[in-house]
Amino acid sequence: MAALVSDSLAKKNNDKASENSTAQVIGGHGTNSYSNNSSYQRLSANVVTKKIEDAITKNLDVETLSSTSNIFRVADFGCGVGSNTINSMQDLLQIVEKKYISQCPTSSQMPEFQVIFNDQFTNDFNTLFTYLPQDKQYLVASVPGSFHNQVLPKSSLHLAHCSYSLHWLSRLPKELRDERSPAWNKGKIHYTSAPPEVLMAYATQFAEDLDDFLSARGREMVSGGMIVIVGSSIPDGMPYSQVVNGIMYDCMGSILMDMVKTGSISEADVDAFNLPIYACPPGEFIEGVERNGLFSIEVIELMNPAPWLKGPIDIPVFVKHVRAAMEGMFSNHFPSKAIDELFDHLVLKLSDISQQLESCYRDGLQLFAILKRK
Amino acid sequence: MAALVSDSLAKKNNDKASENSTAQVIGGHGTNSYSNNSSYQRLSANVVTKKIEDAITKNLDVETLSSTSNIFRVADFGCGVGSNTINSMQDLLQIVEKKYISQCPTSSQMPEFQVIFNDQFTNDFNTLFTYLPQDKQYLVASVPGSFHNQVLPKSSLHLAHCSYSLHWLSRLPKELRDERSPAWNKGKIHYTSAPPEVLMAYATQFAEDLDDFLSARGREMVSGGMIVIVGSSIPDGMPYSQVVNGIMYDCMGSILMDMVKTGSISEADVDAFNLPIYACPPGEFIEGVERNGLFSIEVIELMNPAPWLKGPIDIPVFVKHVRAAMEGMFSNHFPSKAIDELFDHLVLKLSDISQQLESCYRDGLQLFAILKRK
Repeated sequence: MAALVSDSLAKKNNDKASENSTAQVIGGHGTNSYSNNSSYQRLSANVVTKKIEDAITKNLDVETLSSTSNIFRVADFGCGVGSNTINSMQDLLQIVEKKYISQCPTSSQMPEFQVIFNDQFTNDFNTLFTYLPQDKQYLVASVPGSFHNQVLPKSSLHLAHCSYSLHWLSRLPKELRDERSPAWNKGKIHYTSAPPEVLMAYATQFAEDLDDFLSARGREMVSGGMIVIVGSSIPDGMPYSQVVNGIMYDCMGSILMDMVKTGSISEADVDAFNLPIYACPPGEFIEGVERNGLFSIEVIELMNPAPWLKGPIDIPVFVKHVRAAMEGMFSNHFPSKAIDELFDHLVLKLSDISQQLESCYRDGLQLFAILKRK
Repeated sequence: MAALVSDSLAKKNNDKASENSTAQVIGGHGTNSYSNNSSYQRLSANVVTKKIEDAITKNLDVETLSSTSNIFRVADFGCGVGSNTINSMQDLLQIVEKKYISQCPTSSQMPEFQVIFNDQFTNDFNTLFTYLPQDKQYLVASVPGSFHNQVLPKSSLHLAHCSYSLHWLSRLPKELRDERSPAWNKGKIHYTSAPPEVLMAYATQFAEDLDDFLSARGREMVSGGMIVIVGSSIPDGMPYSQVVNGIMYDCMGSILMDMVKTGSISEADVDAFNLPIYACPPGEFIEGVERNGLFSIEVIELMNPAPWLKGPIDIPVFVKHVRAAMEGMFSNHFPSKAIDELFDHLVLKLSDISQQLESCYRDGLQLFAILKRK
């Protein structure tokens, strides 16, 4: 069940430089690094691979795509660091190759394949490259920059992938820190259990980000190209306090407020801190794609992100994963010794309520969507 | 005059993984880092910019190039780390933009520009990206991998740049370490002052590497696309012992042999170590391009890499530059305390012969060539 949370936190925020809302994933290969603590993402990827294969087999017209060019480009937006992105890209290439063989059996040759890794300028691309297999049969490029902007040439991309990245907001809505606003998020670090105006501020920012993402991909992709999106979600209308992530954010908020009482950190610091994370329900997602207008929705469904995970949660392991994904966000804002205190207390606090966590809703927390460029 | 040496050493070797001949440039922003010790490269770049502008204005047919695509791609092969590669790419873009404006004045819009940075997988692309200006008006990608292989899609590249990179051999010829071969390079670390068989082994390897480079670029470039090459050279027939680099390599070799006597390192280690650096004379270069057959030579000339540098050499500064560029090569082979000893002694030894260094040949040590894809 750890995957419910760690999946949804394990990618970097593609954030705009002006705001201090970056979720820095720990690079390199160390004990707390993302690359050594992201096995859940790989498991999750396996679950969706079959669905992606079905959709590509049915809907991707490689004959038309390849008629104008002898190169097929696949890009991962918000790739992060580690082998997951490489494995996902290789899975996609295999599926596309199969499709070529079945759709163009008389064609004399495959196109060249280029795999493009996108993430923020601060992503650890050096480490990512160390994971590439020596005998890879495809060309590779990394493209740094926020995926809310165009990062690739117009009409150059055939297949896009974006897994557990869209939930990172590009910026935090200003009103969350504005004492005079009804959306002031005092004493909390997320919209979970917060006033409806706080949720609305998050949702509005997400809708804007989604529109920017789709417009940028719309420019980059060829007509008929497809985007696979996998990420955090929740059934329409369900409050976030019913899911493990939400309960954990509430715990983090209350631990931080306890630390204010002991003088470890200031209350103003807690009031000013908000997690730039939004789990978009499918209704809002569909609305956003339709409003944008550049893509048709070929597939959309809610899934259980980790149906194989049953039974009690190993809280220390779970928190270790959460920390690998989230530490950067906290350490950008709070003094470093406060970070240890926060995560140590989180283990204790979640252990106290482990039964409650286990009975949480967990089925439809993963959005799986395939969009096609009109 | 330091530029005569530091220019020719300041780029990473695009080396094949199987051989231990990598010249690792020091990444990051530290005191000894390449990025903080590569100002000479920038000066050198200024000198050639005007020549490149002349050649592009005269020979690059942007109208034809842009007729098939609305993207113009420029790549730097062996980009290294630091602002030089970014400045060079921006200079090239400005020149190409001017050419568009003059050749296609009625065209409604410029193409999109994409700048591609290529270097080995181990290059510090993370640091390179920190040098990119925030307000850049072009798309960016990094493409890791040896430039002796194809690293970009077929017919996707319009303009290539390769500055002070080609002289790094992809591998060291095996016979240099073979006691039974006439090309065994006993007690030396370079072909300077070595038997002719040693020089021949280096030259043969360079010719092979040049052919691989040209064949790879030939696949990647569109017809009419151009390559700008700047790098280490020497007039046809001149022995390398007449130039500063050569004298320095001889000094390094003799310092290492002195260190054998004091027991700091073993003689076998010195015998097994060779610098994978070859300064190709123009005659051999022309021969290689013609043998390859994919490119025509639009411009080729020998230049003084740093005509503005006169007077006495500041030996400690000079050695600091050399060390920034070469330390990685030595530290891959010799124990780390031997490295300090080597460079400390190099300052002393070169200081003793500073008059000799100043009277060395220095005019035609930079090859400048522009090739055009047939």
